Amino acid sequence: MKEVRQTGEYRYTFGPYHEPVAIVDPGEALVIYTADAFENKINRPEDLPSKVLSNVQFTNPQTGPILVKGAEKGDTLSVKILNIEPLRKFAVSAFIPYFGGLTNTNSTPMLNEPLPERVFIYAIKDDKIELENGVRIPYAPFLGTIGTAPEIESINTLTPGYWGGNMDCPETCPGNEVQLPVFVKDAHFFTGDVHAAQGDGELCGVACEIPARVTIMLDVVKGKKIRWPRIISKEHIMVVGSARPMEDAARIAWSELINFMVEEYGYEKLEAYQLLTQVGVMRVGNMVDPNYSLVAKCPKEYLRKHSG
Amino acid sequence: MKEVRQTGEYRYTFGPYHEPVAIVDPGEALVIYTADAFENKINRPEDLPSKVLSNVQFTNPQTGPILVKGAEKGDTLSVKILNIEPLRKFAVSAFIPYFGGLTNTNSTPMLNEPLPERVFIYAIKDDKIELENGVRIPYAPFLGTIGTAPEIESINTLTPGYWGGNMDCPETCPGNEVQLPVFVKDAHFFTGDVHAAQGDGELCGVACEIPARVTIMLDVVKGKKIRWPRIISKEHIMVVGSARPMEDAARIAWSELINFMVEEYGYEKLEAYQLLTQVGVMRVGNMVDPNYSLVAKCPKEYLRKHSG
Amino acid sequence: MKEVRQTGEYRYTFGPYHEPVAIVDPGEALVIYTADAFENKINRPEDLPSKVLSNVQFTNPQTGPILVKGAEKGDTLSVKILNIEPLRKFAVSAFIPYFGGLTNTNSTPMLNEPLPERVFIYAIKDDKIELENGVRIPYAPFLGTIGTAPEIESINTLTPGYWGGNMDCPETCPGNEVQLPVFVKDAHFFTGDVHAAQGDGELCGVACEIPARVTIMLDVVKGKKIRWPRIISKEHIMVVGSARPMEDAARIAWSELINFMVEEYGYEKLEAYQLLTQVGVMRVGNMVDPNYSLVAKCPKEYLRKHSG
Amino acid sequence: MKEVRQTGEYRYTFGPYHEPVAIVDPGEALVIYTADAFENKINRPEDLPSKVLSNVQFTNPQTGPILVKGAEKGDTLSVKILNIEPLRKFAVSAFIPYFGGLTNTNSTPMLNEPLPERVFIYAIKDDKIELENGVRIPYAPFLGTIGTAPEIESINTLTPGYWGGNMDCPETCPGNEVQLPVFVKDAHFFTGDVHAAQGDGELCGVACEIPARVTIMLDVVKGKKIRWPRIISKEHIMVVGSARPMEDAARIAWSELINFMVEEYGYEKLEAYQLLTQVGVMRVGNMVDPNYSLVAKCPKEYLRKHSG
Repeated sequence: MKEVRQTGEYRYTFGPYHEPVAIVDPGEALVIYTADAFENKINRPEDLPSKVLSNVQFTNPQTGPILVKGAEKGDTLSVKILNIEPLRKFAVSAFIPYFGGLTNTNSTPMLNEPLPERVFIYAIKDDKIELENGVRIPYAPFLGTIGTAPEIESINTLTPGYWGGNMDCPETCPGNEVQLPVFVKDAHFFTGDVHAAQGDGELCGVACEIPARVTIMLDVVKGKKIRWPRIISKEHIMVVGSARPMEDAARIAWSELINFMVEEYGYEKLEAYQLLTQVGVMRVGNMVDPNYSLVAKCPKEYLRKHSG
Repeated sequence: MKEVRQTGEYRYTFGPYHEPVAIVDPGEALVIYTADAFENKINRPEDLPSKVLSNVQFTNPQTGPILVKGAEKGDTLSVKILNIEPLRKFAVSAFIPYFGGLTNTNSTPMLNEPLPERVFIYAIKDDKIELENGVRIPYAPFLGTIGTAPEIESINTLTPGYWGGNMDCPETCPGNEVQLPVFVKDAHFFTGDVHAAQGDGELCGVACEIPARVTIMLDVVKGKKIRWPRIISKEHIMVVGSARPMEDAARIAWSELINFMVEEYGYEKLEAYQLLTQVGVMRVGNMVDPNYSLVAKCPKEYLRKHSG
Repeated sequence: MKEVRQTGEYRYTFGPYHEPVAIVDPGEALVIYTADAFENKINRPEDLPSKVLSNVQFTNPQTGPILVKGAEKGDTLSVKILNIEPLRKFAVSAFIPYFGGLTNTNSTPMLNEPLPERVFIYAIKDDKIELENGVRIPYAPFLGTIGTAPEIESINTLTPGYWGGNMDCPETCPGNEVQLPVFVKDAHFFTGDVHAAQGDGELCGVACEIPARVTIMLDVVKGKKIRWPRIISKEHIMVVGSARPMEDAARIAWSELINFMVEEYGYEKLEAYQLLTQVGVMRVGNMVDPNYSLVAKCPKEYLRKHSG
Repeated sequence: MKEVRQTGEYRYTFGPYHEPVAIVDPGEALVIYTADAFENKINRPEDLPSKVLSNVQFTNPQTGPILVKGAEKGDTLSVKILNIEPLRKFAVSAFIPYFGGLTNTNSTPMLNEPLPERVFIYAIKDDKIELENGVRIPYAPFLGTIGTAPEIESINTLTPGYWGGNMDCPETCPGNEVQLPVFVKDAHFFTGDVHAAQGDGELCGVACEIPARVTIMLDVVKGKKIRWPRIISKEHIMVVGSARPMEDAARIAWSELINFMVEEYGYEKLEAYQLLTQVGVMRVGNMVDPNYSLVAKCPKEYLRKHSG
C-alpha cells in the first residue's frame, strides 16, 4: 500500500499554496502518517506546551496536501476511513492557558487570570486509554482534522469550516466515509490530529492526542457539488456545520442535512424538516476551536429508500 | 394512588403566585394528568394553531402547582419519573409561523416571510408513532416541561431556565430522577408538555405532542442546595443548562456538572474538567425555545465511587 | 406636584402581582424618588456589595408599581422624562465578582477565579462627576431601569426585555419620551436605577449609581399597540431591543424600528431597511445584564414627513 | 505623488501569496485607486449582482498588496488616511439574497425564501448623496476594507479579523490614523471598498459603494507589536474587534483597548476597565459580514497624559 509521510515541514494551513506531499489515483488505498496536535513534542508532564512548541499560535500540524488526480472544482472527494493505529504507547492531553470551553480565550477574552497550564500523559494498553484515578476508557480513534484546500483562501489548521478542517468530531472514524467539497484541481487533501478518544465538545480543548498510522481510501465523485462536509456511517447520514455562535453551527448542519436529503433522497425541504424534528440526532463535536463544530444526523432506517 | 387533575385553568407561568392544585406528602407516588402543548385543541390537520388557540403567546399549559409539604428554600426536590401513558391515540406536531430552529422568530427576527403553518397528526399504535411516509418510530415519552416556582419571578412556560421549565430534553423520562432547586416553601411543582418522541434539538419547535397520564414520586432532600436542574439515570449523572447563545447553555451545563462532581463525588474542579474532556456526553435538548437547553452528562462508570 | 415615595419595600420584579405605590391620572406630572441599584447601602469604599446587600441576587430596587388610570392591554404608556436630580453628593460604582462585560458570569460561567470586588465613590459637584485620577465628566443622568408589568410574567429587575426593565440605555434621559407597551389594566409602571453617567455597554456592569428625584409625566395612548420600548428625542426615533446573543438584540431593535417607520411614517419594510442601512444609528446600551440592550435609531431629519 | 493602480487582477484575499502591485518607502504619501465592492460593474438598477458579478462568492476586490520597505513581523504599520475622492458621480447599494443583517444568510441559514434582489443608484452631488425620496445625506467617505497580510493565512476579503480586512467601520476615514499589525516582511498592505456613507451596522449589507482615489501615508513603527487594528482620531483612541457572536467582537475590542491603555498610557487593567465603564464609546461597524466588527473608543480628554 502506498505510504505518505510528511517530508519537509508539516502544514499549518488548509490552502492551495503548498507543494504536494503525494499524488494519488482515485480509488487507491493509502497509509498516512500523522503527527499529534503538539508535533509529538510532549512526552512527559514537564513538557508544557508553552515550553516545547515552536509557535503556540500555529500548532496542529497536518500531513498534506495529497493531490487526487482527476478531482476538479465542483466534485466531491470521498474519504473512506479504514483504520487508525497509534504510533506510540501513550496519548497526551493538556490545559493550555487561554484555550478551552470553560475559560477565557482569544475569541472570548476576559480580564481574569488564565487557568494553569498542565500536561496529562495517558498510557494506551489493550485497546484502552488509562486516564487519571484508574479510569480506563475504550480506544476510539478518529481524525480530529481532515479537509481539502479552499479555492483561494488558506486557513489555519485550528479552525474548522466549509472545507472541513479541525472539526474534532468523533464521526470521522474507521468505518465511516467523509465527503468533502473539492474547490481546486486535484482537491489537495490534508489530515492529522488523531484523537485516541474524546468526549463531546472536547471540553478543555485537548483530547487524547496521538501520532498515528491512518489507512484511508480517497475517491472522486465527479460532478457532485456539496457545500459542507458530509459523513456516512452504517447507521446515519450526517453533515458537519462549523461556526459561531453555536446555534449557527447547528443551523448550518441541519440545513445542509436537509439539502442532503433533498438532493439524494428526493425529500421536499419542509418534509425533511419535520422528519428531523422527530428523529434527528445531533453531536456537539467541539466547543473550543475558533469555530464550533456540530454534527446533524438522520438515521438511515427512517430515510426514504433511494429510488435508483 | 393520588390523582392530580388540573381543576380550573392550566398554568402558563412557573411562579409562586398560583393557588395549588394539590398538596402532597414527600415520598408519595402520584398520578398527574397533563394537557398537550396546544391545550388538546388540535385534533385534525385543519386545526391550525393560529385558529384554535386562545392565545398563541401563552401556550404550553402546565398542571400545577403541586405543593410538597416540608420543602423549603435551599432544599432539593427529587422527582422520580415512573411512567408516562398517552391519553389519546395520536400525537400532534405543527409548523408555527415565526417559531422553530430554521426560521426567523421573535427572538431572531428577520424581514423574510414566515414558513407556512401546518399540522401533522401521527397515530400511536403498538408502542410506535406513525410519522409521514410510513416511518414508524418508538414511543419514547418524556416530560417536555417540568420545574419548580422561582422565588419571586414568574416565568412563561415556553422558557426553560434555572427552575427547569420548558427544557424539552428526552432525559426527563421514565426511569430517571430529576432534581430541581426549591426556592419557595412547599416547592410549587409543575409539569406538562409530554412528548411521545422527539429528535435532538426539537428542530421545527414541535415534537410529537400528547396529553398524558404521568406517574411520579416527589421527595425532598433537605438542606441540599443546587442551582440548576440535575438528572440521574442508571448510566449518567447530568445537568441541564438553558441560555442563549447556545455555547452559554453548554457552559452552564458543563460547569454545573463539574459542581455536581465536586459536591457529591469529591472531585477537584480541574480534575473533573479533564475527565469530562475525555468522557463527557452532551445532548442538544432544544434549539427552539426562548432559551436553548443542553444536557451535560458524565457516565457513572467513570465516576469515582462515593466514599460514604 | 404629586410625589411618589416607596412605602414598604422596594420592588425586585416587573410584574402584575404587586400592591400599587400610587395611582395617577394620565397627563399628570409626577415626582418619583428612587433608590440606587444597591439600595443606597454603599457609602464608603469599605461597603462591599457582598457585605452590605441583603441579597446580591435580587438587587436593583424599583419604585412602583404606579398605576395609570385608564390604561388597558394593547395601549401604549408614554413617559416624558422631565428632570433627574441626585439625592446625594456622590455616585457609586463597583466591581462585583461574576458580573460584568469582561469577566465570567452566571450567564457565561468559566472555571477562572473571579475579578476582585471593589467599590468606587465619586463626588458629584458643579454638574460634574469626579472619577479617579482627577477625571471630571459631565453629569448626564438617565433612568437605568424603566418599564411596565408583563401580562402574567414577573421578571427580576436586573433583566431587560419587551417590557423595558434594566435596559441601561442613556437615551431614557430628561428631554426624551419613552413609550412602553401596556399589558395589564392600569399599566403598572416602575422605575429606578438612576445613572449619573455611563459609558456605552456599561462595561464593568456598574455605572455611576445614584438615588434620585425624578420628574416625569405619564400618559396613555389609547389603542396604540407596540411590542418593544420606543424612545423619541428631538433628533431621533428609536427602539430598544434586549436579548442574547447581542446580534439578536440588534435584530430586534432594527426590525422593530422598521415596524415603527411602517406604522407611523408610512414606509414599506424594505424601503426602511435600505434607508437605515445608510443613516441608521446604533447604541450599545448594556452588554452586562442577563439580556443585552441595543438601541436602533433613525434621525428624524431623514424621515418622511407625517402625512397627518 | 506616487500613484498605485491595480495592474492585473484585483485581490480577493488578504494573504502573503500575492505579487506586489507597488513597493513603497515608509513615510511616503501615496494615491491608491480602488474599485467598488462590485468591481464597478453595477451602473444601472438593472445590473443585479447575480447577473453582473463573475463570482458572487468572491467579491470586494482590493488594491494590493503594497509592500512597505523595512516592515517586519512584530512591527506596526501606520496608515494615515489623508483624502478620499469618488471616481464617479454615483454610489451603489443593493439587496443581495442571503446577505444582510435582517435576513437568512450562509452563516445563519434558514428555510425561508430570501429577500428580493434589488439595486439602488444614488447620485453624489455637492458633497451630498441623494438617497430615495429626496433624502440627502453628507458625503462621509471611509475605507470599508483595509488590512495587512496574515503570516501564513489567506482570508477572503469579505471577512474582517485581527489583520483588519472588511471591517466596514466609519472610523477608517480621512483625518484618522489606522495602526495594523505586521505579520510578514514588508507588511503587504491592501485596501478598497470605499463607502461614500454608511449607517451603523451597515444593515442590509451594502453601503453607498464607490470606486475612489485614496490618498494615504504609510509608515512603520519598529518593534511595536499590536494584536488587533487600532485607530487614532483627534478625539479618541480606538480598537476594532471582529468576531461572532457580537458580544465576542465587543469583548475583543474592549479588552484590546484596555491593552492599548496599559501599554501606551500606563494604566492598570482594572483601572482602565473602570474608566471605560463610565466614559467608553462603542460603534457597531458592521453586523453583516462573516465576522461582525465593533469599535471600542476612549475619549482622549479623559486619558492620563503621556509621561514621555
